[in-house]
Amino acid sequence: MRIKDIGEIALIKRISKNLRLDSSVIHGAGDDTAVIKWTKDKDLLFTCDMLVEGVHFRLAKATPRQIGWKALCRNVSDIAAMGGVPRYALVSASLRPGLPLSFADGLYKGLRSAADRFGVNLVGGDMCHAGKIVIDVSLIGEAEKKGLVTRSGARKGDLIFVTGAVGGSIKGKHLNFTPRLEEARRLVKNFRINAMIDVSDGLVLDLWRILDASGAGARIYQNTIPVSKDAASFEKAIYAGEDFELLFTMGVKEAKRFFRTELARMKTPVTLIGEVLDKKDGYTLVTKDGVRKRLKAKGYLHF
Amino acid sequence: MRIKDIGEIALIKRISKNLRLDSSVIHGAGDDTAVIKWTKDKDLLFTCDMLVEGVHFRLAKATPRQIGWKALCRNVSDIAAMGGVPRYALVSASLRPGLPLSFADGLYKGLRSAADRFGVNLVGGDMCHAGKIVIDVSLIGEAEKKGLVTRSGARKGDLIFVTGAVGGSIKGKHLNFTPRLEEARRLVKNFRINAMIDVSDGLVLDLWRILDASGAGARIYQNTIPVSKDAASFEKAIYAGEDFELLFTMGVKEAKRFFRTELARMKTPVTLIGEVLDKKDGYTLVTKDGVRKRLKAKGYLHF
Repeated sequence: MRIKDIGEIALIKRISKNLRLDSSVIHGAGDDTAVIKWTKDKDLLFTCDMLVEGVHFRLAKATPRQIGWKALCRNVSDIAAMGGVPRYALVSASLRPGLPLSFADGLYKGLRSAADRFGVNLVGGDMCHAGKIVIDVSLIGEAEKKGLVTRSGARKGDLIFVTGAVGGSIKGKHLNFTPRLEEARRLVKNFRINAMIDVSDGLVLDLWRILDASGAGARIYQNTIPVSKDAASFEKAIYAGEDFELLFTMGVKEAKRFFRTELARMKTPVTLIGEVLDKKDGYTLVTKDGVRKRLKAKGYLHF
Repeated sequence: MRIKDIGEIALIKRISKNLRLDSSVIHGAGDDTAVIKWTKDKDLLFTCDMLVEGVHFRLAKATPRQIGWKALCRNVSDIAAMGGVPRYALVSASLRPGLPLSFADGLYKGLRSAADRFGVNLVGGDMCHAGKIVIDVSLIGEAEKKGLVTRSGARKGDLIFVTGAVGGSIKGKHLNFTPRLEEARRLVKNFRINAMIDVSDGLVLDLWRILDASGAGARIYQNTIPVSKDAASFEKAIYAGEDFELLFTMGVKEAKRFFRTELARMKTPVTLIGEVLDKKDGYTLVTKDGVRKRLKAKGYLHF
């Protein structure tokens, strides 16, 4: 049996099974970031994300600066999805010795501009040579205990929201997106968010991850889902990756308060796209024609 | 100008220059690990290390389990060299989809056995596909404030010590070494260690790093340097990488106390190999024939 035969989701569950963790670990593998006890009021968040040439970017289409920006911002997006703020980053980079020095300069300019924008300290890293460019950023963040949001808190009756629009990221957004840090912070400071994730592998797959972790089902509505003008089709928009939008759930009462007090003030659109159901009610999409289609854990998967 | 033309040392200095860091960062780039304020008594250590197929291991010569062991232990060695203990790790892995599932199983067995051995919590990671296997481990550790040791504390008159023996790591030690965590902990708990580093790129280069950071010179003696029986020659032993031994300096008084109280008790040999000098006295090796040879920042460099 090969790695591609088992598939990414099963492989990750397989290697994460029965890990020995001490009592200082609040959440290990399985969320946007790990959560570790830190101070009386704050938890420490810890996440990493690897960018591979030819997979996450192509030199012909991305500037070095965009690659650096993307490498850090993907991680900032994960910290945002937990309700936290990013603090300290390390950068591991494999580079080809024959690349122009201007590539390294541009890459680190992109990393620095993202770090400055989102208050991240670049505190070190590692560098080595390889045939392909690989950038791995690891990021420590912090979250107020009461503002921490995981994937597993969605409850039957919750309403499901998404920021911005999904799809068409490949046309450029995946290289220059702004992680929804400010939006996430406003949300967790002012509302009780039950579950949240950043949409990195497609809306359908990432909502599935919330449902899987929460032991719930859901129904979403095609005519409510905000699709980017860059998306080739609705189908592609909901299954393609790297939107880096926030996908989250709130109880109905909280959602009403959100509509009344916050929605109009937010610069970024937030759209209600569906509701959380019992697990036994499954995971479905109601199409424009009113047809119910069953949804699966389908989206951007590496294996 | 290409990356290989500027070289690794200058490139790292170039990209680390003038990074904006807030007051919570005690040491940024430039040591074995970054150091960040944590609690009243403890600092947080943060490090990462990337392993690339064909550079740090070859599938024909290394088992998956050895690769996993090495990936985590390189980082444990960095935490040890700061006087700390490792606590939380993330693993980013690029794998070929056509690899057997047993490769992934073996890799994570190696990671787990190292984690269990050294008290590390594996709290998550990232996984993607790529043509070459790349494993990047990032590791958070902690150090008692008064036990923290950096590269920059070596002072004129200090004596220079190394654990174990150097050289010949390529014959197998680089895949199954035991990071000197226990030794480092005994040292920092019981003695005032002025500077420490783990020997990852060769004794000469890593001692140069201590001297460069400390603004000092040094003299080391060929007939005192412990060379592994696996080493092809003395020359190769002092310039080859991946020994993962501790290289450290102590004042003379402290060294006398170390000789009297500790040396005989240590299971791992610790050898006096030279002394720290004024910067203007340079960096030299006294050969067996009594000849003084000037040493440079030469060793394992990626570019």
